[in-house]
Amino acid sequence: MQLSKIHSPEELKKLSLVELEVLSAQIRSFIIETLEKTGGHLSSNLGTVELTLALHRVFSAPEDRIVWDVGHQTYTHKIITGRKDQMNTIRQYQGLSGFLKCHESPYDCFGAGHATTSLSAMLGFLIADRAQKKDNYHVAVIGDGSLSGGMAFEAMNILGARGERAMIILNDNEMSIGHNVGVLAQRFNQIRNSPRYFAVKNKVGPQLNPSLQKGLASVKKNLRRLVMKSTLFEEMGLRYYGPVDGHNLEELIDAMEALKDYRGPTVLHVLTKKGKGYEFAEKNPNLYHGVGAFDSKYPIIESTKTDFSAVFGNKLLQLAKENEKIFAITAAMADGTGLKSFQEELPQQIVDVGIAEESAITMATAMALGGLKPYVAIYSTFLQRSFDQLIHDMALHGASVVLCIDRSGIVGADGETHQGIYDTSFLSIVPNMQLWAPMDAVELEAMLDESVDFTGPLAIKYPRGNCPRLKEDPGVITENRLYARNSDLLVVSYGSMMESLLELQKEISFDLYNHRIILPIDRAALEKLFKNYQRIIVVEENIYTGSLAQKLQALFGVESLTLMDGFLEQGTPEELRKSQGLDKASIKRKILKKD
Amino acid sequence: MQLSKIHSPEELKKLSLVELEVLSAQIRSFIIETLEKTGGHLSSNLGTVELTLALHRVFSAPEDRIVWDVGHQTYTHKIITGRKDQMNTIRQYQGLSGFLKCHESPYDCFGAGHATTSLSAMLGFLIADRAQKKDNYHVAVIGDGSLSGGMAFEAMNILGARGERAMIILNDNEMSIGHNVGVLAQRFNQIRNSPRYFAVKNKVGPQLNPSLQKGLASVKKNLRRLVMKSTLFEEMGLRYYGPVDGHNLEELIDAMEALKDYRGPTVLHVLTKKGKGYEFAEKNPNLYHGVGAFDSKYPIIESTKTDFSAVFGNKLLQLAKENEKIFAITAAMADGTGLKSFQEELPQQIVDVGIAEESAITMATAMALGGLKPYVAIYSTFLQRSFDQLIHDMALHGASVVLCIDRSGIVGADGETHQGIYDTSFLSIVPNMQLWAPMDAVELEAMLDESVDFTGPLAIKYPRGNCPRLKEDPGVITENRLYARNSDLLVVSYGSMMESLLELQKEISFDLYNHRIILPIDRAALEKLFKNYQRIIVVEENIYTGSLAQKLQALFGVESLTLMDGFLEQGTPEELRKSQGLDKASIKRKILKKD
Repeated sequence: MQLSKIHSPEELKKLSLVELEVLSAQIRSFIIETLEKTGGHLSSNLGTVELTLALHRVFSAPEDRIVWDVGHQTYTHKIITGRKDQMNTIRQYQGLSGFLKCHESPYDCFGAGHATTSLSAMLGFLIADRAQKKDNYHVAVIGDGSLSGGMAFEAMNILGARGERAMIILNDNEMSIGHNVGVLAQRFNQIRNSPRYFAVKNKVGPQLNPSLQKGLASVKKNLRRLVMKSTLFEEMGLRYYGPVDGHNLEELIDAMEALKDYRGPTVLHVLTKKGKGYEFAEKNPNLYHGVGAFDSKYPIIESTKTDFSAVFGNKLLQLAKENEKIFAITAAMADGTGLKSFQEELPQQIVDVGIAEESAITMATAMALGGLKPYVAIYSTFLQRSFDQLIHDMALHGASVVLCIDRSGIVGADGETHQGIYDTSFLSIVPNMQLWAPMDAVELEAMLDESVDFTGPLAIKYPRGNCPRLKEDPGVITENRLYARNSDLLVVSYGSMMESLLELQKEISFDLYNHRIILPIDRAALEKLFKNYQRIIVVEENIYTGSLAQKLQALFGVESLTLMDGFLEQGTPEELRKSQGLDKASIKRKILKKD
Repeated sequence: MQLSKIHSPEELKKLSLVELEVLSAQIRSFIIETLEKTGGHLSSNLGTVELTLALHRVFSAPEDRIVWDVGHQTYTHKIITGRKDQMNTIRQYQGLSGFLKCHESPYDCFGAGHATTSLSAMLGFLIADRAQKKDNYHVAVIGDGSLSGGMAFEAMNILGARGERAMIILNDNEMSIGHNVGVLAQRFNQIRNSPRYFAVKNKVGPQLNPSLQKGLASVKKNLRRLVMKSTLFEEMGLRYYGPVDGHNLEELIDAMEALKDYRGPTVLHVLTKKGKGYEFAEKNPNLYHGVGAFDSKYPIIESTKTDFSAVFGNKLLQLAKENEKIFAITAAMADGTGLKSFQEELPQQIVDVGIAEESAITMATAMALGGLKPYVAIYSTFLQRSFDQLIHDMALHGASVVLCIDRSGIVGADGETHQGIYDTSFLSIVPNMQLWAPMDAVELEAMLDESVDFTGPLAIKYPRGNCPRLKEDPGVITENRLYARNSDLLVVSYGSMMESLLELQKEISFDLYNHRIILPIDRAALEKLFKNYQRIIVVEENIYTGSLAQKLQALFGVESLTLMDGFLEQGTPEELRKSQGLDKASIKRKILKKD
């Protein structure tokens, strides 16, 4: 067995091409076996096995800087950089991260979870290393989808002008073709479908498995024949080569070896297949993008979703069918935000802007000013990207945009880069922002109904996971709601915490105030309410700074029970709530013992 | 006199080319005369007189949507859309805005102050208008500098793919050539300096002043001859035409007329000259970018600056000369942030990323991880653009980046889009952020000295305007400082408010605590300090939500005196402080009468 012998990427350099191919098959099996038990990102990792081996074969990390965009496709990288034996802990509480992390390994030179940061990071390393007279190599691996984000362009603009040696690996996994968002995707599609590419590919294809020892001269000749014109990159000052087969180790290694010493920035276009080598995943890469534990012998059955995203998507679709002014906007996440059916049934009323949250908000502002009713569905953590556009565009124009903020609160296994625990805080800064948080499907649907005729900026936030139906009648949805038990203790909360608090109310006595209209705060109403109570505790799944709890504490001196300021690691939501004293038992202790 | 007869852009359509040329001369004189008294953006407005007249001649606003990027170059637009008689109030308290504002005129379809929003806004209007079966035109005017911002690219990616009729006017005013940031600037430079362009220009040049009534056929022929290849735009799915002379009304009108009905998105490359028609401004457009009241007969003398930016720039230059690991980073604002001398004297230690605040922070993070000490100088309001990068990149990596936040607090005449009144709030959300605020040059210099060996993310914020030297000895700069008067009243403040509070201390008795280390809050130290006082008031030039005042109120029940939540209009800092109860007299009343 090769795999058990690989403890660092240096060892790859001793292997023959055939041995590398054997190794890639072993890694692929190992990933599938591991994820059968742990779950994780399957499709993207099966797509980058050969690419990762080629990178570590050609370059010498950690001296050479290999920056991965997003990083959820780096399981092979983790396996061959000494973390194979911990892979069974991946994405678990205090286990290996599902993304890259500087603190986890010296081979992870830059961590990420949000897309499009890799080129800026590579540029920063390049400047730092050259300033310190190092002559190491710099490589960034970025997906075709990530290139639709403006930051990538900002970095290319500078990389192209500086003209220093650096390699961008464009990991083109066809996902942008399925979705076909933007003109970049169209260009990649043209290249992929070009007869010239296939002609070259067929010529190169049969030459599998010759020794790597053959002279570089012929490799370079082959490369020249592989070159397609991508004038877009060339215009950005980047030499473009490709496309090469991302599952052909020889092609990959030859191309990287030939390009690595080019005295300027290059783009190597690599075609990979999500789910490669595992039939079920190849056929349905989206379904296998992120999986729970599964049995690889049988296909995963797509279950009917009953999460908040699904409730949102179904309700918005229904509203949009009745009102052609309603538009949905997504930033390359129609699936994740529950808008898949909307996209299929009302394609003329949905706009996918690519991974471009900044542009999404400004565009939505103009759509609203132009007479439409735009609903922008974005994960809480990605909406951080739009902070300035929320203030400078949406709020300043008082535009009737509805932000539908998915994955608000603790998200779990994705960890620090994905927790939606800052949104109440940063939305509170946005002038005149209204922020609502439904506790269940009934409230979410009622809020969406109400939102249609709402004037001005409005955000509705809801958590990841199952969406219960807790109370059949939502009452007047634009008002907060008291669940009274004749207690002199009042617990104030909203959204994701309400289900366990309603349960807790069955165990111990307290009045419960569903502060579902988080912003604006109705100070007069609260003053009137609060004077009836001896003790008031605000319970909230948001960091303390900027929380509703902190606000009410400043105004009324109430007690607070929130997440701690800072980052929140990975784990199950239950583990994380417990670690933060926000699980039911901890809340109960806080209420009973005032600890 | 033509100008006095123009009350709406419709009237331009009746004028001959010669009359339009007369009008443009009158407008130019009127702008200079007005700004002699009011001050304002001079160079950019003198550069867009003909372009604006041509736009309103060819298109029919407000039905046709003309979106201006940034908007400080729209004085001609304001003058001919019924606001000529109010131009003497521009940028003044309750007067005309120096930018566009929807609420000011129906001709201002989209307001802005930050760059690179125009293409996303135009895209939004386009989607809205087409969905509502309108067949109007859509135009965005964007500067060459703005194109370096990623949002512009995000919008082009979608505009190009949708392929609908829309026109992007690239207002190329050479500024990016002077600075030469990025590969885009290089491309525009190549086009401008191409022999082919000049050949065409010379052929077309002498044909001035024929009647506009000549057939479109010949115009289109001319246009074809004017076409240069800009494959960058063509690759983005945009038909590129140009460049045309932005001060030649006939060329402009011909080009727009010929292009306006093209069934797809186009780019019309227009060459303009900042300061056009006013010799002093043409020679030194940067000096005349924003002017105070002046006498047009004499050149403005560049005075030695003594503002916070200058103190910062000089000090950082000195530190960087002694330490080659210190790097300055600017987002196209070396001048404004005081880094002009740095750029001239240590070009190898400064990186200008263009208008790309997002990329700047991620790049700086990698530079810090790579062993350098990066100082990112950005205006407070523009740093809003980097909110996610501050959290997801800088803070998550614990990178030793120093944010040097200029224009923090009230900025004055630029109004809503430029006030730096949210930074304490949003930086408080960033995990493990340290935030310092010097009250004067002594503290700023001491903080910069201290920052060199500081580990982890650090922000130092300082206001626009004069930088005094209030106290010669800064004490231990990493600690807060008490100016005691044996009072039982404590005023807590920092930064920009300290000067007037120190003065006030000479009039009435109170202890003054300079909370210059805004974050983190040393709760134990404050507890100990606060128990000595009967009454505590926090005074702060930041909105209430997220302020230090709110935080201390939540912890200790203190009183607060801050800016109100929301937007803050334009005016002098004195007027605005007064309107918000933050002027010395109001603070005095608050202290004395507890109102």
